[in-house]
Amino acid sequence: MSLHWNEIEKIAKAWTIEAGENIKKALENPIEVKAKSNPDDLVTQVDKETEQFFYQKIKETFPGHQFLGEEGVAEEGKLNSLDGTVWIIDPIDGTMNFVHQRYNFAISVGVYHEGVGMIGIIYDVMSNEMFHARKGEGAFLNDDELLPVKERPLHEAVIGVNGRWLVEERNVYQNPLRALVRDVRSIRSYGSAAIEMAYVAADRLDSYISVKLSPWDYAAALVILNEVGCVASSFSGETLSLLESGTVVTAKPQLHKEVISLYLGEEF
Amino acid sequence: MSLHWNEIEKIAKAWTIEAGENIKKALENPIEVKAKSNPDDLVTQVDKETEQFFYQKIKETFPGHQFLGEEGVAEEGKLNSLDGTVWIIDPIDGTMNFVHQRYNFAISVGVYHEGVGMIGIIYDVMSNEMFHARKGEGAFLNDDELLPVKERPLHEAVIGVNGRWLVEERNVYQNPLRALVRDVRSIRSYGSAAIEMAYVAADRLDSYISVKLSPWDYAAALVILNEVGCVASSFSGETLSLLESGTVVTAKPQLHKEVISLYLGEEF
Repeated sequence: MSLHWNEIEKIAKAWTIEAGENIKKALENPIEVKAKSNPDDLVTQVDKETEQFFYQKIKETFPGHQFLGEEGVAEEGKLNSLDGTVWIIDPIDGTMNFVHQRYNFAISVGVYHEGVGMIGIIYDVMSNEMFHARKGEGAFLNDDELLPVKERPLHEAVIGVNGRWLVEERNVYQNPLRALVRDVRSIRSYGSAAIEMAYVAADRLDSYISVKLSPWDYAAALVILNEVGCVASSFSGETLSLLESGTVVTAKPQLHKEVISLYLGEEF
Repeated sequence: MSLHWNEIEKIAKAWTIEAGENIKKALENPIEVKAKSNPDDLVTQVDKETEQFFYQKIKETFPGHQFLGEEGVAEEGKLNSLDGTVWIIDPIDGTMNFVHQRYNFAISVGVYHEGVGMIGIIYDVMSNEMFHARKGEGAFLNDDELLPVKERPLHEAVIGVNGRWLVEERNVYQNPLRALVRDVRSIRSYGSAAIEMAYVAADRLDSYISVKLSPWDYAAALVILNEVGCVASSFSGETLSLLESGTVVTAKPQLHKEVISLYLGEEF
């Protein structure tokens, strides 16, 4: 392949902007909403159309690349390996916000090569905020470079976590999460994991925690977070899989260590 | 007084935009942060300067008007009555966001006449979103009129509530709040009561609930909410005071009734 990563990044950003424009246009019309198996897991026509848009562009332009998307529009079905170049895409992260708010949702595009994150783009469509990074070249919010993150003590930290997880009886992480929420300064919940992880990279949050995310939720975020010195792992401290779902904690490095060792890292 | 309310509204909006520009400029410099008695209750130099800006403008332009602001810069001190015209202002709602994120904070300006809300302005400075209303003239987000709100069943509602209140041992409302959070579709927490109440008016949230707010937090919001058919009260269903702090639940009318009667309206 003759294209350099900076050219692929330019193309990926242009497609993301175009997809965002299409979504804005679609929002002027009523949305068809279908419930998935879980009523909280809404999927819209726009969601599928957006993934299809990326899938076709990628197949035309980079026929050798693999594709993994939340909506599963790829003909190949499930991704079995990370060989070669893989695009991992969530067409609309924060679907409930999309349906209820028509706001606070993002397109998330991660490009990996032989398992290594090369490009990450998280585009908050309605706020016109694009968080983006290319491996080794720093992370940006629109045209402004994001600074390497500075640590805050845990008791001064503001973390992204969904308050619902503090009261769900089935949630095995309820007690450690409650203890953590009591000890930090405050919590936020924006309803889009991709935006919340981008906020960690941009120093708007000190950490973001989720009891379950999938590769398309965090593929782009991992590239961006890495460029500003943030880390990510499962609750037990393991590297996140790009092929399977699981728990996620992203944070500044010292805070990440404390959250894992003092709260979330126990065996369940 | 010869000025009409639409002229006062124009002036209030122009001042709010000007105050927002000053805040954006100040954010380019380091912020002086002083802790109030409670470490979570941060106040910045910018906060005070912004309130001072409004206070001076109002005293010059409308010498007969009263002034109530969070930072207490008014010479008169505490407001004892709502006689005549009263400006109730929170110069920066969401101070912790302002300090930590430099994002997601708002200027809140309410103008009341003989205790009746005439003008409400909530300006999300960094997102350039101004929610505004004049009594009887509808509510707007920038230039777009907000529609009268449509109800959603409680189990489909997305509500703004701080997850911290679900785990604080001292919080007497912990159990009813937990029950409510379990029963609704999802919760959000943006860290600015004014923005979250504006989101209720704009149908981005179905309800916003707080265990403690002050008049400057909700003075502007009440005017905006009223124009789209939303209601607000204390947890026990009483009209909110413009002179004292207390619990707050704002929502679409049917949802408001259910939240009070089924969850929060018990005697504590």
